[in-house]
Amino acid sequence: MTAIADTTTEDRYITRITGEPGLIERTDPTVWGHGDGPIDPATLASHDAKGYSIYEGLLSPGEVQAYRDELTRLATDERLKADERTVVEKASGEVRSIFEVHKISELIAELVRDPRVLDRARQVLGSEVYVHQSRVNYMPGFKGTGFYWHSDFETWHAEDGMPLPRAVSMSIALTQNYPFNGGLMVMPGSQRSFVQCAGETPADHYKASLKEQEIGVPSQADITALAEKYGIDQFTGPAGSALLFDSNIMHGSGNNITPFPRSNIFVVFNSVENTLVEPYAAPSPRPTFIASREFEPLRR
Amino acid sequence: MTAIADTTTEDRYITRITGEPGLIERTDPTVWGHGDGPIDPATLASHDAKGYSIYEGLLSPGEVQAYRDELTRLATDERLKADERTVVEKASGEVRSIFEVHKISELIAELVRDPRVLDRARQVLGSEVYVHQSRVNYMPGFKGTGFYWHSDFETWHAEDGMPLPRAVSMSIALTQNYPFNGGLMVMPGSQRSFVQCAGETPADHYKASLKEQEIGVPSQADITALAEKYGIDQFTGPAGSALLFDSNIMHGSGNNITPFPRSNIFVVFNSVENTLVEPYAAPSPRPTFIASREFEPLRR
Repeated sequence: MTAIADTTTEDRYITRITGEPGLIERTDPTVWGHGDGPIDPATLASHDAKGYSIYEGLLSPGEVQAYRDELTRLATDERLKADERTVVEKASGEVRSIFEVHKISELIAELVRDPRVLDRARQVLGSEVYVHQSRVNYMPGFKGTGFYWHSDFETWHAEDGMPLPRAVSMSIALTQNYPFNGGLMVMPGSQRSFVQCAGETPADHYKASLKEQEIGVPSQADITALAEKYGIDQFTGPAGSALLFDSNIMHGSGNNITPFPRSNIFVVFNSVENTLVEPYAAPSPRPTFIASREFEPLRR
Repeated sequence: MTAIADTTTEDRYITRITGEPGLIERTDPTVWGHGDGPIDPATLASHDAKGYSIYEGLLSPGEVQAYRDELTRLATDERLKADERTVVEKASGEVRSIFEVHKISELIAELVRDPRVLDRARQVLGSEVYVHQSRVNYMPGFKGTGFYWHSDFETWHAEDGMPLPRAVSMSIALTQNYPFNGGLMVMPGSQRSFVQCAGETPADHYKASLKEQEIGVPSQADITALAEKYGIDQFTGPAGSALLFDSNIMHGSGNNITPFPRSNIFVVFNSVENTLVEPYAAPSPRPTFIASREFEPLRR
């Protein structure tokens, strides 16, 4: 399947193909900015090489508590539980994620504009940015299920029409991330390879894919090749730590049988120079609460 | 349910109860020996406190390769695949474990008598020992499923009639144990608490329980209490590392979505002064390939 929207330039990130999928070398940069910002040069260089950077203590313990209280409030709001933006765990019926949460919670609306968050995204993307997606995630103890390996950009390109990997995600931990409670695993450097996925995207694919990914899944051969080349790093650290990671980095998470739950706030920033067009490989775009089409730059 | 076999002394480890399960303080020692052996005093003291000890490089790289080849040979032996001692993965049909493997493989028969292995077990248990159970485990990459939290002794007591926690297991890694590919998690110190489990043991329970544990599962409240008190350690290290752990330590493992498979050789040594009687909480004993009733001491 080829690009159906961007007729002026060739689509360099062709996916959801019918043949044998492969790896495409990324020609776009990882760090687009050269300007100032809160990220020091060494950390920015490391982010450029590895596709991610970690900021311990981005939130103070007091802020962590305030956001945890906010997440509890949101998860127990019965009106919100029936909202289409709320994803409920298959087995238990518990809230797993709430999307577009920066429009639901004033506290989180402030957070996405906080210089500690916003200016890091601007610095990496080298432009003004807007929120492509926001959500809060709840992973319960004992029965938390993980996410299989994937690149976010592969989905955003195919299903949302995001032209280039000029987006960055920030995951802010509200609980301690141990190596053993289902925290995010990333393959450092893998953001330089675009991994094609096989299979045509069905209509309304997002409804199933938010719970369990089936289409848009990299092949085991490609995951093995990337893991052998790049290895695996884990995002560990105390509550309040933030992980900033490239839209195309290969990542996933295991399950969580420990009693220690995990929850985080997750915000995707996209460059205002990379706004969405029609999906590159899906019959129609996903809902705007998953992939925003309001492209006004975020202002403090 | 009370002991049906040992009528001379009271059963201190009552389990598979119908009421609310609880924690019973262990009065028996963790380290029974005071004699010589390959374990140095500091490591033995740490084993006593934590209920486990790790021996990096117990096997040389050449030995690791020889045992890996042996495991491949065993897993691809079609005759063995049909043997009742072979456990096959529910979903994929692949071999997950082969029991009584020290009677199937000469190489593994030698290993259980190797002084590096046998003398450590003798030293911890303070007596001659025999093999209560042996097996090889294969956890594939991408789709390896873990084991929920449990104490081995709880099962061996209830279903096999093992009187006291005077047994020790050695798990020898034949692949690298990362923190993220489904390696064993233990709660250091938890061997001092016997965790009662609720529910009556059905007949032939072992057939289901070897694939997925349902009866003999500690309560979430007890697991949470233990995890908060003791924390969680992971068994990580290169291939050839060995973990020696107490029969009553609370342990479990997560799934493995990484491409890195895990395999190990697992041997349970029981003291010849702790031989099996009738099950304490099951209609009949499990098969001898899971719980041996040949109590002759191992000789080199």
